[in-house]
Amino acid sequence: MSHAPVPPAATEDVSCADAPTKAGRLFLVPAPLDFGCELQAPLEDALPRTTIRQAAQLSHWICENAKSTRAYLKRIDALQPLSAPIQAQHIAELPREVHKKGDHGDKSSPAFDARPMLAAALQGHDVGLVSEAGMPAVADPGSSVVRAAHDLGITVIPLVGPVSLLLALAASGMNGQNFAFVGYLPQSGPERAQRMRELEALALKSGQTQVFIETPYRNAALWQGLTQTLQTNTRLALAAGLTLESAKVCSLTVKQWRQQAIPVDNRTPTVFLIGR
Amino acid sequence: MSHAPVPPAATEDVSCADAPTKAGRLFLVPAPLDFGCELQAPLEDALPRTTIRQAAQLSHWICENAKSTRAYLKRIDALQPLSAPIQAQHIAELPREVHKKGDHGDKSSPAFDARPMLAAALQGHDVGLVSEAGMPAVADPGSSVVRAAHDLGITVIPLVGPVSLLLALAASGMNGQNFAFVGYLPQSGPERAQRMRELEALALKSGQTQVFIETPYRNAALWQGLTQTLQTNTRLALAAGLTLESAKVCSLTVKQWRQQAIPVDNRTPTVFLIGR
Repeated sequence: MSHAPVPPAATEDVSCADAPTKAGRLFLVPAPLDFGCELQAPLEDALPRTTIRQAAQLSHWICENAKSTRAYLKRIDALQPLSAPIQAQHIAELPREVHKKGDHGDKSSPAFDARPMLAAALQGHDVGLVSEAGMPAVADPGSSVVRAAHDLGITVIPLVGPVSLLLALAASGMNGQNFAFVGYLPQSGPERAQRMRELEALALKSGQTQVFIETPYRNAALWQGLTQTLQTNTRLALAAGLTLESAKVCSLTVKQWRQQAIPVDNRTPTVFLIGR
Repeated sequence: MSHAPVPPAATEDVSCADAPTKAGRLFLVPAPLDFGCELQAPLEDALPRTTIRQAAQLSHWICENAKSTRAYLKRIDALQPLSAPIQAQHIAELPREVHKKGDHGDKSSPAFDARPMLAAALQGHDVGLVSEAGMPAVADPGSSVVRAAHDLGITVIPLVGPVSLLLALAASGMNGQNFAFVGYLPQSGPERAQRMRELEALALKSGQTQVFIETPYRNAALWQGLTQTLQTNTRLALAAGLTLESAKVCSLTVKQWRQQAIPVDNRTPTVFLIGR
C-alpha cells in the first residue's frame, strides 16, 4: 500500500486492552516454506534478520508439532545462538481439537479457549507462535492463541516472513485489490464441482480473486476437476513450490490449460487461484 | 500451511506458456512498510537477504513512482552495491489510468495492456516490479504487469517481504483460514454504512474475516463509523504502523471499543478487520 508520510511513534496514543504489568509478548514467528523438503535453502534467504534474531531470543513456544519446531530452532541456532538450548525450550503443541474443528469452533462446537496456553506470557516470558510453514494463524491453526493474547491484554507482534498465499496472489496476475482465501474445497463429487462453480461465479461477477489450497497428494485430481468444471474463458492460476529453486507460477485461461499436460504433481505444496 | 514432504525439483515437469528464448524474468520486489516515515528501520530488518541481493542485480524497473523507487534503490545500494548506478537504472512508471481505474478495468473501461512495458524483458533483461510499500500487485496496482508477463511467457518470481494485510490478519486473532481483502470502503454516507453492515453480515454468517484499508487521514472517521454502525458483539481489529517500532495491533468487540478513546490517528497506515 502507498500512504501518506508517517511520523515516528505516531501511534503512541493508541489505547486498547491494558497489558498486565510485566507480561511477556506473543510473537508470531513465520517459518520458511521448505517444510519437509530434502533440500532446504539457507534460512536467511527466506527470513529477515529481525525475525531470526527475535526467534532466537525466545524460549517458550506454541506450535502445531514440537518435533518440527525443534528442527526449526536448530536451523535458527546455526545462524543466531538460541538464548536457551533446545532441550531447555518450553514447547507446547496446539491440541488436536483445534486441528480438527478450527480455532473458533462452528455451530456444533465452541471456540477453543487458548488462554491457559499463555500462562508463561502472563508470568513475564515472551512466547513464540509458529506453524510448520509460513505465517502462523494464516491458512493454519493458531488464531485462537492470538485471540487469547488479545483477551488477556498481551501484546501481539507479527514478524515478517514468507506467506505462500500472498506470493501466489501477487504472482498470479489476478486482481490483488480484492481477493479471498477460502481454504480447502470439499473433497468429493457434486459438492466439489458446485463449490468450484460458486467460486468461479464470485470471481467473475465481483472481480474478487478466489484463492484456495489442497493437500498435495490431491493436487492433480483438483486440477483435473477445475479444468473440466470451469468455463473456458475463466482464468486459472497455480503457484507451486514457492520460494524453492523449483518454484513455478502459471496463469492461463481454462481453454489454454486444456491444451497442456497436467501442470501439478502430487508432492509439491500448491496454491490455486480463480479470477478474471 | 503444513504439507507432506517435498522432494527437490519436484515441479520440473510443470509446463505452461513457453517462455521466449532468452527472455528476462519479472521479479516482484517487496518494499519495507516505512514509506514516508521519518525514522526508517534498516532494510535488512524487513527483507530477507535474497530479496535485497536480487533487487540489487536488476536495472529495469516498473513502479508506481520513480522518485520513491530511486530512494529505495539508494537504500539497497548501501547494503548491496547495485549492478548499475541509480542514474543508469531504467525506471518506468505505471500510467495514471491504472491508478484510477485499476489494472483489469471494469464494465466501462477495458483492462490495461501492460505488454509494451515488458519490452526490456523480451530483450533479455530481468525486470523488477515494485510498489511504494509492501508487495507489488497486492492492495496496490501492478497486477496488469504480472498478467502481461504470463501472456508473454515471461517467468514471474515473487520475492519475500512484508505484507501489511497478512501481518494484520495473523495478529488480529480472527479466522485466518477464511478471509477476504476488500480494499477501500465507499467514502460517504449511506453507501458507506451499508457496506459496513454488508461486510459484518458476511463475517458473522460465513466466518470469513473481512479486511480493508483506508487512506490514513480518514482513519479516525472510518473508526467512528465502524463503532457506531456495527453490532456490539462483533469483533473489530486494527493494526497500525506494522513493522515499525510504534506498531500496534488491537482486537476487541465493538462494545469494548465504545468504552475506549479513538485508537487511530490520521497519519499511520492502518489495516482494519471485522470478524467473529
